[in-house]
Amino acid sequence: MHDFILTLEDLSTKAIGNVEALFAQANGFMGVRASWPVRTPEATPGSFVNGFYESHEIIYGENAYGYAKEHETMVKLFDFRSLELAVYGQVFDRLISEERALHMDQGILHESFVYATAVGHELQIDLESFTSHAKRDTYAQKWTIKALNFSGNLSVKTAAHHLVAESDDEFDPRIREASADLIFEGNRLTTRHSGLSLYSEFSSVDQQFDLAEGESISFENFYRLSRENHFEPVDYEDLKKQQAVIFEEFWKVSDILIEGDVQLQKGIRLNLYHLFNSAGRDGVTNFGAKGLTGVGYEGHYFWDTEMYLLPFFIFTQPDIAKNLLTYRLQKLPLAKERAAELDFKGALFPWRGISGRETSAYYPAGTAQFHINGDIAYAFSLYEKVTGDHDFIEKSKEVIYETARFWQSFGFFSERGFEIHEVTGPDEYTALVNNNYYTNKMAQHNLAYAAELAKRFGEHVQEAADWQEAADKIYLGYDQECLLTKQDDSALDKQVWDFAGTPKENYPLLLHYHPIKIYKHQVLKQADTLLAHMLYPVDLAQQARDFDYYEPLTTHDSSLSKAIHGIIASRLGRDEAAYQFFADSAIMDMVDGQGNASHGIHAANMGGSWLGLIYGFAGLEFENGKPVFHNHLPASIQKMSFKIKVKGQVETYTFTQEERNV
Amino acid sequence: MHDFILTLEDLSTKAIGNVEALFAQANGFMGVRASWPVRTPEATPGSFVNGFYESHEIIYGENAYGYAKEHETMVKLFDFRSLELAVYGQVFDRLISEERALHMDQGILHESFVYATAVGHELQIDLESFTSHAKRDTYAQKWTIKALNFSGNLSVKTAAHHLVAESDDEFDPRIREASADLIFEGNRLTTRHSGLSLYSEFSSVDQQFDLAEGESISFENFYRLSRENHFEPVDYEDLKKQQAVIFEEFWKVSDILIEGDVQLQKGIRLNLYHLFNSAGRDGVTNFGAKGLTGVGYEGHYFWDTEMYLLPFFIFTQPDIAKNLLTYRLQKLPLAKERAAELDFKGALFPWRGISGRETSAYYPAGTAQFHINGDIAYAFSLYEKVTGDHDFIEKSKEVIYETARFWQSFGFFSERGFEIHEVTGPDEYTALVNNNYYTNKMAQHNLAYAAELAKRFGEHVQEAADWQEAADKIYLGYDQECLLTKQDDSALDKQVWDFAGTPKENYPLLLHYHPIKIYKHQVLKQADTLLAHMLYPVDLAQQARDFDYYEPLTTHDSSLSKAIHGIIASRLGRDEAAYQFFADSAIMDMVDGQGNASHGIHAANMGGSWLGLIYGFAGLEFENGKPVFHNHLPASIQKMSFKIKVKGQVETYTFTQEERNV
Repeated sequence: MHDFILTLEDLSTKAIGNVEALFAQANGFMGVRASWPVRTPEATPGSFVNGFYESHEIIYGENAYGYAKEHETMVKLFDFRSLELAVYGQVFDRLISEERALHMDQGILHESFVYATAVGHELQIDLESFTSHAKRDTYAQKWTIKALNFSGNLSVKTAAHHLVAESDDEFDPRIREASADLIFEGNRLTTRHSGLSLYSEFSSVDQQFDLAEGESISFENFYRLSRENHFEPVDYEDLKKQQAVIFEEFWKVSDILIEGDVQLQKGIRLNLYHLFNSAGRDGVTNFGAKGLTGVGYEGHYFWDTEMYLLPFFIFTQPDIAKNLLTYRLQKLPLAKERAAELDFKGALFPWRGISGRETSAYYPAGTAQFHINGDIAYAFSLYEKVTGDHDFIEKSKEVIYETARFWQSFGFFSERGFEIHEVTGPDEYTALVNNNYYTNKMAQHNLAYAAELAKRFGEHVQEAADWQEAADKIYLGYDQECLLTKQDDSALDKQVWDFAGTPKENYPLLLHYHPIKIYKHQVLKQADTLLAHMLYPVDLAQQARDFDYYEPLTTHDSSLSKAIHGIIASRLGRDEAAYQFFADSAIMDMVDGQGNASHGIHAANMGGSWLGLIYGFAGLEFENGKPVFHNHLPASIQKMSFKIKVKGQVETYTFTQEERNV
Repeated sequence: MHDFILTLEDLSTKAIGNVEALFAQANGFMGVRASWPVRTPEATPGSFVNGFYESHEIIYGENAYGYAKEHETMVKLFDFRSLELAVYGQVFDRLISEERALHMDQGILHESFVYATAVGHELQIDLESFTSHAKRDTYAQKWTIKALNFSGNLSVKTAAHHLVAESDDEFDPRIREASADLIFEGNRLTTRHSGLSLYSEFSSVDQQFDLAEGESISFENFYRLSRENHFEPVDYEDLKKQQAVIFEEFWKVSDILIEGDVQLQKGIRLNLYHLFNSAGRDGVTNFGAKGLTGVGYEGHYFWDTEMYLLPFFIFTQPDIAKNLLTYRLQKLPLAKERAAELDFKGALFPWRGISGRETSAYYPAGTAQFHINGDIAYAFSLYEKVTGDHDFIEKSKEVIYETARFWQSFGFFSERGFEIHEVTGPDEYTALVNNNYYTNKMAQHNLAYAAELAKRFGEHVQEAADWQEAADKIYLGYDQECLLTKQDDSALDKQVWDFAGTPKENYPLLLHYHPIKIYKHQVLKQADTLLAHMLYPVDLAQQARDFDYYEPLTTHDSSLSKAIHGIIASRLGRDEAAYQFFADSAIMDMVDGQGNASHGIHAANMGGSWLGLIYGFAGLEFENGKPVFHNHLPASIQKMSFKIKVKGQVETYTFTQEERNV
């Protein structure tokens, strides 16, 4: 079972930021980075509460009508993991050694640190900790402190340091920290601008212990945060037992067994572990791009949830899927306001944010990604198809209608069909184009699904006919000469990026070239047309041509890219390529493949690695609304086994090399 | 000669902001708004020094590589026109009446105000003032103050109030005020961030006068500002005489006589007056979009200079034209830096700014307007063609070479020819398009002119061949089916704006709709393809089709639009339309046609009205490099007479209805 335990040896870089993020613990409500127990400047501790953000006015160099008005930034709350330790007035501030073992099977982190004072007194600090899934308001710790080579009076003090954002004068758009202006009143803390409150109940230790050499002391500690000022009593051992039961239940359905590659096995488990941990459970929160493990992307929710995370939840943890979809339903009124503000009908969900309001301060790669609407509709329909939970869809149908109304008013009929202009597709190295293939496919599905629901519920007859017409006549660009699917109207007319002349250190391109330089070239950040093919397969020869054309143009500067490429490669029988894409994706954060795991896990990529296994190696497609599988297992994986839950029934699937070769 | 005098009666709105801007005085170095002599909250006094700006870091909601780094804002300096007046401790703060007479023939403003105290004491204040063109460091005033209905001890105090920017929480991108952080040391003032200094020498009055009813006092006052701490003595009457001589010289060449419409006659003179007043003379300053009459557009220099103002100067005041072109030559090193920053060769001039650095905080309508390079090259070539000053072009040839190098590296050869992608043309209601017709035409000329110069000077042989090839193969989009010039690759594919459904109060569109909504439609802010046709005429039938197609799609939300439409209409023999476009343009600020004359004059439109007369009604075109004229005089103008200076020779042209009807 050691491939259920993540240790420091599994990480290719042990920089503290990466360790903090990968060993972070969370329970959908609260997240805690695995920082060191002694505070030090290079560490970046943090704890977060899902949906707890501070807002700040967005300042534009040049403002314009309809721009998003406020930033929302998930608040970095406290350092819950530091102790103040001293003996003979000397502090233990020299880290001698550390060991960490994240028991993913139980949801518990075991750590052991040796610290020394300047004069050489050494302590061993053992910490067992977890963010409780039974009581989501609780982060529970059990500390054991042992005097290794001295006797003396040890002073021990716990302290939940309130953290402030680090100033950030970089222009890396992927991180953005902003100080929250918190008001502390008794055990309540409130954000000054967004007006959100949390209550706290922190136990604490502030004691002196006479320790003999080799002797140890031990104590439990609880840091509790809640939206209500009410905390039920908790018992450490009880919570720990409940945690193990909950994780056992989780893995029972969600685990995937991979034989033949221990690193991949551990990588995929780490991914599923984090997915389970960071998903909002309350219907009013969602899943940040970095989960609850770091401040990257300000803790914002994106389309990542619908397109990269929800398939995993829908197929294995449908209750969590329902909670995440309920968040969108809750935010429908704000999405309607936003569409009206932009002078369109229906609802437009925000490209990014927490509250449900648009917060993207760069509309060409923000608001213009209208495909968010289609992504949300897609997720609802996938949920219905897999779970059969028609009641929930009946409750949520306005989401589908209103997003369809948006497309109907945003697009227009021309000689070519129903066209959708001035959008940005998933590939953010191209912006503000006409008829992005992915967007048009998602809009088509959204419109058709709305028409289907309207028919089912016997309503909106005329509108439904219009929606169906738009869906039927959707314009999908195709180059008859090159036999290629056109990513957008002008995609194939552009100059090809000078890859040979681009030094390695100039990737990701977005940090080294002006957007105009990037946009004017044929160069992709991530899967775009290929993602559409993954969802809506065209004939294989076409997928092959498009793959062969677009993949070499793709930098994979986005962590959302490789898994999708792997899936198409699987379909095409290109096992070696498929395996490599999958492997890069499965262990991306373990090897810090994107170079910024310290900002937090790449949640969408983690979900993408699940897609890679199930849609790729296991070849999931739908036939007549039912999942069917095709064995695309690459040679280096002997056997893969997993479960999915379809209409309440858990089914186990096993794929082997032998079967494949039959 | 009364049509040389602007009075309040000529303005359709007498709001103080408009009056301040239209009666403002300037001399290319210094500008002073015609504010009231008693300070009041609704007034917006201001004085400015050309090129004297403060910089501030641009804050982006989301930053990216290569974005402009600093705002530059022309500093609103002092209120030079207010007096503090009191009798018996009562202040004169009630304006009873005012008269203003701007003697444009002499460059002198005569004003008369009656003010009263709360208890009814009345004063008449007469002010004669001018910004000296003989001594550009001097703003000269002659005050006469008369007790109308009282006797008493009048206290009179002049005070140059230092002005601070008004806060601006609107999102109107056309205005932007920012407080300058000025450091005052003795008679030197320095901007804290941009580090620019000015020296001042202000005379002042602080005196008590025993006045009998009907009696008056009189005094002169000088406000002087200079980049050097050196002020030569001045004499009011001498300066006044010199002013009259200078203006006589100016009008001798630059005046245009229009018979049949007094308002138009005055309108065009007001326009030429302001053009003469606000143009930088020193080769290191240029001409702000609002001249030196207001804070609109932060006092920035745009392409307006090259395309709307320079033709007037080139044809009638070539020395001023040379000064304005010298500014660009001076800034070439910064333009080379900018091109390198964006990873292109050659030089890229800034879309807007003062120092020569790019300051546009919204690149889709800023940096992306690469046509600025072609506009500058065009102005140099027009200057050479009209003046025959080849020496200056030899000195400036690097401007042409470096801009050509930019195009060569920014564009690319495809099957279709030499293409230029991801640019924004003059029409800012469309952004980031491929092969904007205007841009491609300007680039073509730029490349060809560079090749021509290289040949003339026997250098850069291989490059010149490349430039010529790119010019020869420039791709110009044309719709074979509709027989229309394509504004850009996708211009004709878009949905047409719903003009019928757009309420009048929703114009200008940019203040009422999100950019995406605007960009995705066929709707134009201003002349784009038609401007290209004005410069590079195609056959008349084509111009007619393009006019008929594009004009109805044009909102003329930009003040740069109507004059150009008028010129094409003239060519097409559509006299009525031509006259209306010209008239709207000629008196635009007198009737506050754009609704924001208070921000300052619309300088480019003023230059545009000159273009309307000379390129439109007089039908100027070039044949074999020589200007030729065609009489397009509309029916309501009996006679038009003007002079132009070609290769040093002043020639007079007169057009009459009789001749036209022959």
